[in-house]
Amino acid sequence: MRGPFSSGEVSGTYKDMSSESCPLPEGFATQTVPLTFFPKERPVQKPLPMKLNLLWLDEPTDSFAGMFTRNAFPGAPVLLGRTLLDQPRSRGILINNKVANVGGPTALADARDLQARGATLLGCEPGELFVASTGIIGWSLPVPAMLEALPKLKDGAERASAWPLAAGIMTTDAWPKARSAACQGGRITAVAKGAGMIEPNMATMLVYIMTDLDIPRAALREILPRAVERSFNCISVDSDQSTSDMCLAWASRRRPCPDLAAFEDSLTHLCEALAQDIVRNGEGTAHVMEIHVEGAPDDRQAREAAKAVANSPLVKTAIFGNDPNVGRLLAAVGDWAGNHGLSLDPSQLEVSLGGIPVYTRGAFQLDADKERLLSDRLLEASMPEKKHAPPHERVVEIRIDLGEGPGRARVWGSDLSYEYVRENADYRS
Amino acid sequence: MRGPFSSGEVSGTYKDMSSESCPLPEGFATQTVPLTFFPKERPVQKPLPMKLNLLWLDEPTDSFAGMFTRNAFPGAPVLLGRTLLDQPRSRGILINNKVANVGGPTALADARDLQARGATLLGCEPGELFVASTGIIGWSLPVPAMLEALPKLKDGAERASAWPLAAGIMTTDAWPKARSAACQGGRITAVAKGAGMIEPNMATMLVYIMTDLDIPRAALREILPRAVERSFNCISVDSDQSTSDMCLAWASRRRPCPDLAAFEDSLTHLCEALAQDIVRNGEGTAHVMEIHVEGAPDDRQAREAAKAVANSPLVKTAIFGNDPNVGRLLAAVGDWAGNHGLSLDPSQLEVSLGGIPVYTRGAFQLDADKERLLSDRLLEASMPEKKHAPPHERVVEIRIDLGEGPGRARVWGSDLSYEYVRENADYRS
Repeated sequence: MRGPFSSGEVSGTYKDMSSESCPLPEGFATQTVPLTFFPKERPVQKPLPMKLNLLWLDEPTDSFAGMFTRNAFPGAPVLLGRTLLDQPRSRGILINNKVANVGGPTALADARDLQARGATLLGCEPGELFVASTGIIGWSLPVPAMLEALPKLKDGAERASAWPLAAGIMTTDAWPKARSAACQGGRITAVAKGAGMIEPNMATMLVYIMTDLDIPRAALREILPRAVERSFNCISVDSDQSTSDMCLAWASRRRPCPDLAAFEDSLTHLCEALAQDIVRNGEGTAHVMEIHVEGAPDDRQAREAAKAVANSPLVKTAIFGNDPNVGRLLAAVGDWAGNHGLSLDPSQLEVSLGGIPVYTRGAFQLDADKERLLSDRLLEASMPEKKHAPPHERVVEIRIDLGEGPGRARVWGSDLSYEYVRENADYRS
Repeated sequence: MRGPFSSGEVSGTYKDMSSESCPLPEGFATQTVPLTFFPKERPVQKPLPMKLNLLWLDEPTDSFAGMFTRNAFPGAPVLLGRTLLDQPRSRGILINNKVANVGGPTALADARDLQARGATLLGCEPGELFVASTGIIGWSLPVPAMLEALPKLKDGAERASAWPLAAGIMTTDAWPKARSAACQGGRITAVAKGAGMIEPNMATMLVYIMTDLDIPRAALREILPRAVERSFNCISVDSDQSTSDMCLAWASRRRPCPDLAAFEDSLTHLCEALAQDIVRNGEGTAHVMEIHVEGAPDDRQAREAAKAVANSPLVKTAIFGNDPNVGRLLAAVGDWAGNHGLSLDPSQLEVSLGGIPVYTRGAFQLDADKERLLSDRLLEASMPEKKHAPPHERVVEIRIDLGEGPGRARVWGSDLSYEYVRENADYRS
């Protein structure tokens, strides 16, 4: 209903998947190898494909930062990764898809095995290499098959484009997600994976950010959480926060960065763009909702209210059906407010959908013409078919003013479609 | 996977829809009239059917009690109903389906109009008659059509069976829901409506409880909240708490009740049965999950954890697909715990599905044989087709022991199916 968001200098995604749109910053390289394995937990014995990916820096860097899921049942790569933040240097990360390495009997030992073998390959200390795994929770990693494939990661290196890595870490993603921004003569490029189990509180996905700018370690660790807070923490596909996920950033420090504020600005824009990419690529997503809440007592409560709308199955299914069932917007806000002890004054509420006021002056303002118009707006923003690139970047704009205070927030969410159910009813087959 | 729950003396629902299974208690009568209307808010002008229902007592009673939604954007019938709890007497309630009368420009005036005309019909004070409306939020009631139909409620009265009322208040419900229990020579009978927008915190549905036992007003008002807490507050179809819903109870006081504790026990069993009926009849429900959480710090947190599992879209879709993706159970619990500052000790966790341990001694215990067995258990509990009565009362039993403390809870939830999306993507057509 609204045109593409303004993303400043950020390039990437469907507009242009060439290496020029998302070049790797100086000092970074990646490689991906495929393998197949037979999961022992699976009744039907047919081979599953997996991809093993390595992202590395030519030289170890002391400037790296990371954030991990708040899920209290985290995977082995998260448990291991948290301890690595104290290391003096990092060289990169080894990433597999298909199996998440969470809670299996040998989960932590497997993660350490892969870390050690990857470090030998790179010629670095084990503590300089992160690992990440994404996919089915509860199954064990096929370590022998992975260790067999691992040496092939030395055969050549991708140094031009971030797209092969973005493609290599996909699970149910329909298209690879990468974004890049030129900044002060240097570059920031990031890849992301994630399509379901997406409600980051921090990240519920894998995000890897690379820059060749000379950002000091302490500065990177201050800036990354702020950028994540405004981007990945403002999206929800299905309200599920994963066990596995993380956002890591490395700076190769090859180019001067005289203006840290400009770097933060670029990084935030890039993360916002990538966060929206994830929602747009959400499992079965046919509409992206952009929900603005203002007039809340504070920003935190504004975000909670916006997420309550984004996560309401009844709102999500109505939007999927291009049905402007706007009563459900207020029902969702009222549900959240009532459960949080916040009273609402109906005479102060204002709600609009696609720029069209639907609730104002203490009452719904609906008639047949308006409902027809609202339905048309929803249709315009819909993405009927999931191809290898999103057909557009339009969003369903929902604005809710609670009329209570100065708090405001913007959240992106997806609708709820048959396709979401199909993908998740039989994800493992 | 488990057989029918034990419901004591409670009769009703699919087993037998005769008037003997759910008789009206002495002193109660009901009547239902159909009407059609053209909603002014609707682009396509075709008539919609509505049912208008009256539930009344032959004599006004001082013994009545009510609980209402905690949604902070409640409908006019809820706003009006709350004020009526202070009245000395009640005579009954007038109920319509199809339009919920929430937030329309004349919502409260319309509710008062209907209340006044209904009271005239019954020959009572307006303050003695509750009103209720359920259906689309945001549209206005078709008051002229309703007032025209209203006098027909005098033409005859149903005095034998609760089933006509249970059928008259349905919206997307697939079958009527009523339960009855004999108690100390008297009777408790209740009807319920509700299939979506179901996560009561109190009620997210309409529930009307009638008894001919001589329960004092004060006792009824103590007992009802406790029964609701153990039943309707322990279910979730889609985590959405409605704007409209209520649970009301009346005692006609025609028969002695020497044992109030026995009454409470019967009422609680009856409410538990009716709560499960609502979940089983949830929009698109193909499995009912019965989630037991124990070992939480307290009962409240146990219920929150259980509801987090019940409301996880990824858990719900996996159960729908008969896919024992048990990793998602722990991911959902971990998500809830992490967001509530509760740490989990994996070595203390125990999880079982259908009585089969899947996580124990600090790790998932899965192999191909066990996955096949789990999948078979899910299939046994599934309800492939929604008919006019549920094919069985089996549940998918999920048990999670957090190993942290004495808190325990039991929650019933539904899976998430294509049919839920279909019904809710185009509810209003």
